[in-house]
This record gives sequence, C-alpha cells and structure tokens, in this order.
Amino acid sequence: MPDEQIINTGLRGVTIASTKISDVDGSVGKLVYRGYLAKDLAGKSTFEEIAYLLIFEKLPQKEALKEFSHQVFKESFLPDELIAALKTRPKNALPMDILQSAVSMLAHHDSDIETATKEVSTKMAIRLIAKVSCIVAAWERIRNGQEPVKASSDLNLAGNFLYMMFGEKPDAEMISFMDAALVLHAEHSFNASTFAAREVASTRAHMYAAVSAAVGSLSGALHGGANTRVMLMLMKIGSADNVDGYVEKELAEGRKVMGLGHAVYKVDDPRALILAPMSKRMGEMKGDTSWYDMSVKLEKSAKEAFKKQKNVDIFVNVDYYSASLYYSMGIPMDQFTPVFAVSRIAGWVAHVIEEQFATAAPQPVLYRPESEYIGEYCGPNVCKYEDIDERD
Amino acid sequence: MPDEQIINTGLRGVTIASTKISDVDGSVGKLVYRGYLAKDLAGKSTFEEIAYLLIFEKLPQKEALKEFSHQVFKESFLPDELIAALKTRPKNALPMDILQSAVSMLAHHDSDIETATKEVSTKMAIRLIAKVSCIVAAWERIRNGQEPVKASSDLNLAGNFLYMMFGEKPDAEMISFMDAALVLHAEHSFNASTFAAREVASTRAHMYAAVSAAVGSLSGALHGGANTRVMLMLMKIGSADNVDGYVEKELAEGRKVMGLGHAVYKVDDPRALILAPMSKRMGEMKGDTSWYDMSVKLEKSAKEAFKKQKNVDIFVNVDYYSASLYYSMGIPMDQFTPVFAVSRIAGWVAHVIEEQFATAAPQPVLYRPESEYIGEYCGPNVCKYEDIDERD
Repeated sequence: MPDEQIINTGLRGVTIASTKISDVDGSVGKLVYRGYLAKDLAGKSTFEEIAYLLIFEKLPQKEALKEFSHQVFKESFLPDELIAALKTRPKNALPMDILQSAVSMLAHHDSDIETATKEVSTKMAIRLIAKVSCIVAAWERIRNGQEPVKASSDLNLAGNFLYMMFGEKPDAEMISFMDAALVLHAEHSFNASTFAAREVASTRAHMYAAVSAAVGSLSGALHGGANTRVMLMLMKIGSADNVDGYVEKELAEGRKVMGLGHAVYKVDDPRALILAPMSKRMGEMKGDTSWYDMSVKLEKSAKEAFKKQKNVDIFVNVDYYSASLYYSMGIPMDQFTPVFAVSRIAGWVAHVIEEQFATAAPQPVLYRPESEYIGEYCGPNVCKYEDIDERD
Repeated sequence: MPDEQIINTGLRGVTIASTKISDVDGSVGKLVYRGYLAKDLAGKSTFEEIAYLLIFEKLPQKEALKEFSHQVFKESFLPDELIAALKTRPKNALPMDILQSAVSMLAHHDSDIETATKEVSTKMAIRLIAKVSCIVAAWERIRNGQEPVKASSDLNLAGNFLYMMFGEKPDAEMISFMDAALVLHAEHSFNASTFAAREVASTRAHMYAAVSAAVGSLSGALHGGANTRVMLMLMKIGSADNVDGYVEKELAEGRKVMGLGHAVYKVDDPRALILAPMSKRMGEMKGDTSWYDMSVKLEKSAKEAFKKQKNVDIFVNVDYYSASLYYSMGIPMDQFTPVFAVSRIAGWVAHVIEEQFATAAPQPVLYRPESEYIGEYCGPNVCKYEDIDERD
C-alpha cells in the first residue's frame, strides 16, 4: 500500500515528538519522570518537589524547594472576581466542566497574558499548579452552599487541597497519602490530555488556553473518568459477598470490568502497587475497609476469570485502588477526575513549556496534520450550486 | 533510517483521518465544503445554509432551511447567569480568552450534558453556532459598560451578530458581506483548532469541551490572529504614499509581511478573491476606501518585491482583505479573531460530530501518539533518589 493511503487513526504508534519529561515502558511497568522512577518518588517527595522536578528538570536542593513551595503557597488563592464568577454557575454543573471554565478564566486575571517568554510561562505554571487545587476545592464548597476556605501557611499543597475541600485540617497520614497520589498521577507522557495541551500550545496560545483544553480532554469518558467508574462498579457489587462470579458474568455478557488493563502497561501498573496499601490504611483510619477488601477480592477473582475465559494475565491499573482510596478520604465521586487534574497539572505545564521553548532538535512546530477526503462529489467534479427552489 | 526514529514533527504530511467534511487542494486553490466549492457558496448562501450543509451533509431545501434558521434564532441568546458571569470578568480580558471561557460555561447550562448521542450533539452544535456569535457581541457590549443586545427575529445570524455588537440594525449590504465572510471562514479541514476539537472529542468529552479547546487553539499567534496583524501593519504603514519600498525593506531586514502566503495555498487563496471587492465596497459605503486602496497597492508592491528579491510568486491569503473589510465595518481589531470563531464554529461542530459518530472506516479512535524520550538518565540506569540533604 503506498504511503499516502495510510490513515494513522488515533496516531497509535506514530512518534510525534521528542521529550525530556517522562519515559514510559509499559512492557516492564516503568514510569520515569526526568530520569527518576515515579515509584521511587511517591512517599518520599511532596507534590511540590515533583512539580519542581518536572518544570525545572532536576530535583531541588533544600533552599530551592523551600522557595518554590513558598511561591506555590503564595499563589494558592483565587481572585475574588473568579469566586464571584463561580457563584453564578448552576450548582449541578459537572466539576470537570467548572474546572475547564475556571482555568480559562484565570487568563483574564494575568497581567502577563500577552508576554510569551519562558520566564512568564514558568510563572503561569506555578500559578496553575497552585490554583487548580483551589478551583476544585472552591467548587466543592460553592456547590454545597459554603464559602471557599483559604489555604493555610502551615500546610503543603496536598494538605491545603484537603483542608480547602473539607474545611478541616487533615490528619498528617491522610496528607501523605494525598501527596503520594498526586505524585503518582503527575505525568504520563503523550496521553490525550497532555497532547491536547501541546497541540493548543503549538499555535503559541498561552498556557491557560492550553491547560483548559487539557482539562476538556481529561473530562472524556475514555480518559480521566475511570476511577469514578471503578467506584460505581464497587457500589453496584455492593459487598465482598457478591464478588464471586461478577467478573465471569460481565465478561460473558461482553461488558467491561473497570480498572483492569491499560493501553500502555502490560504488566503491573507501577502506580497501582503503591496505591493499594494506602487504600487499605485509609480504610482502617476511617474504620471501614470494606471497599478495599472488596477491591482485593475482585482483583483476585478478575485475574482468575481473565486467565480462564480469555487466557490472558490481567493487571489492575492506577484507577483501581485510587477509587477506594479517594472514597475513603471522603472525596465525592464526581471529584475523582478533578483530583486527577490537581496532580496532572504539573505534567501539563511542563509539556507546554517544552512545546514552546524546547531547544533540542527536532523542535516542535504548529500541528497541521493531513486528512483524506472521502466525501461526496457530484460525478467526477465538484457539485454545482443549485438555487434553493431547484434542489431535490 | 529505521521507522522508529522518525519524529513526525507537527504531523506535517501525516494523514490522520478520513473526512467527508471538506477537501482542500492548495496547489490549485480549491476549497470544497461537502462537495461544493466554497467560492460558489459565498454570496449565494446565508451562513445558516452553510452550517446546515456542514452538519447535515447536504444543502437544505427551502422548508428545511427555514426550520434550521429558526432553530438557530431560538438559540441566539445567553442564559442570564452566563451574562452575570461575563460581568465579573476584568474589562481588559482578551476577547478570545473570554470566548474560550464562555463556550466552556455553556456546558453548565445544558441539561443534556451527560447524554452522548448524535441527536444531542446535533442540538449542541446548533446551540453553539447561535451562541458563539452572542458571546462575542455580548462581550463587546459588556467591556464597554453597555448591556448586551437581544437578537431580533427579522435578522439572520450575520445580521444579528452585527446588531448585537453595535446596537443598531445593520444595512442589508453590510449583512450580506458579513454573511459571505462567515461562509468563507466556516471550514478548512484539519487546521490546528479543528484538530484540537477533534482530539478532545476523541476522549468522548462533550462538544463544549472540544469547542472550547478549539477556541484556545485559534487564539494562538500562529493560527487565528493574522488578520489583526494585517490591520496593524496597514496602520503602521499609515497611508498609500508610504507603500513604495515597504515590502522590500521588510524582506531585506528579515521581517514577515502579514497576510501573504499560506501553509496550504500556493496559488490565489480562493477566499481572498471574494473578500477584496467586498472590502472595497464596504469602504465606499463608509466613505473611506483608504485601507482598501492601501491594501491593493501593497499587494501589487509585494508581488513585485517577492518576484524580484526571492523569485517567487506570492499571493495574499484570506486574512489580507478580511482585515480592511472588518475594520471598515467598525469591528475592533481585537475582535477579528473572535469573528473568525463565529464562522469556524460551523466547521468545528461538524468535525466533532464526525469524530464521535463517523460510521465510515477507518473510524476515529482516542488519540494516543508516541514520543521519544531524550531526557536524562543517570548512567545506563534510572537516577537513584537521593535524600534532599544529599543532593548537589
């Protein structure tokens, strides 16, 4: 088949860029941020430290991290006019839709909006890392008729996110779990939302425009919403007693079991291995490990069923245990995907900076793919315009 | 060079989809919407008729067009809460940034937001076609401290857009020019903004999320802002007397002359040929053809200079005469790109519907391209995490 007839649907297997940000090798379960295994970072580094790594390309020394964390804290607020705008929004609006709008509105408040330098983009990156968590938490308050809570200087981003959402200073162990979850979701190469951010940034649009597009992309059912659907599945099963036979039945009837398998990982998702024990401990802290217990039993049952019915080894993915973890923390199910964004913002901004300021060859250029026209023509030529009264 | 090392930067020359929406052949200056030459449609069809063609794949008969135009008119308003949200926005916010936010906010007011059927997407498409023009006009009013103007049932979309923006019923000839300009900008295949819309839609995100991303992409300096920069160039030149030598000097000093050449068209841009006489007539109607006259003289001078200095035939593009046309209509320069969006929305929504509901093979799938990691490792292996006190 000649080259010009190949349609690269979904760009699967098509290499579109060089990147220094992350490396994923699904065949061995490897996820690397700027040279470091993500699993080596989770539980050791705060989210701020990993945001620094992703933006500035190296782990910070003590003073640099202190300064960066302070900058993030200083940006951890929303302009009054933005809160006023959020208060005009219907209370049943989807949290991801609110987040896409609010990220875009942040542009209206940035006096550097027409300056396209790496320095300004880096400032915008720090603003976004701080303010995405503020938006998600503020909307949770506003839709429940409560006032947004202001960030507290004695908490880091993970802690402040929980504090701003729940209005109570969180337990240190819970903060450490949120921190680890944010670290594990921070970056994953050219997934659909990151690609959306880079595509928009390739026109030289500013970072808010690019990140707002990424939020829109993450909101899609095929991308960010999986951990919510894992939780809905667990609720539908109802209790560990009902696990036996569930996967077999779903497979037999051609339905999907949520949280299993991954487009990239063909072995254990390195992130799932870390999230599972946190989900267990979080359940213990809240006095209810039933969701975790059900998840463990279902994982075992799914592995057996897939082996037996399809002869494949199946593995749970990052969404599987984050579902019960977030639920045990008290996060509403429709906020699971926004929590993903609170983390992934670190990767998105790093990618936007790389898209616009990369110096390594080949440098990114405006995305302008080709398509093949398969639509109608009227015979061998274009259609003749007929007056509206003469059309049949 | 083995396949895996090819980096398809900007996806230039990479065919990523089949489409039935439009066909562009830059080598002969051909732009086709669903089988019809765009130049055959401009001046004959209203924008509503072309939006119908793009969405429903054929030109409407009389009754169908009447019904569709009525549906568009019925959607030509903004919810009060959205106007309230716009009033919270800083008056110096960039109109494209406002448009991206407001398109996203439309999702909050759509009770069908979680229904993913072609019927619902088509309803959203009609809403967006109507409401993008309302948003652009309303923001023009609000930022000038005026109340938004409500659409009038005796005007079509082009007429109402001008009416809502200026607060005065426009002249029929001016409406016909706006209609033709909207028809000519409505669709242009897989440009960066349309690709952004499709990329977001490929995750099964809803149409507002996808279109909001497209607006962000269009806002970039390399994409939608060119006609504004043409006008700024004309203003800088100041008068026809200063045209001689301008292009030569710009070329000699390595600067770009705006509105010349096109990524796709290597001959006359078919759209420019239609816009030029409208720009002339619009100038005559307003009693000032100086911008048109200057444009004509500059075009001639540019053709000569490019031939002489670079030995290439250069042609003006769609942005060249739309600049003086819009300016003569009284549209503020920073609203030129939003006017582009008022038109291109028709193409965007058609592409989102095709992305999500195409039945022709190969069907679109979630975009998930590959990248090549060229970042650091610490020797042959991943970097070892060192405690913060031990880093150098």
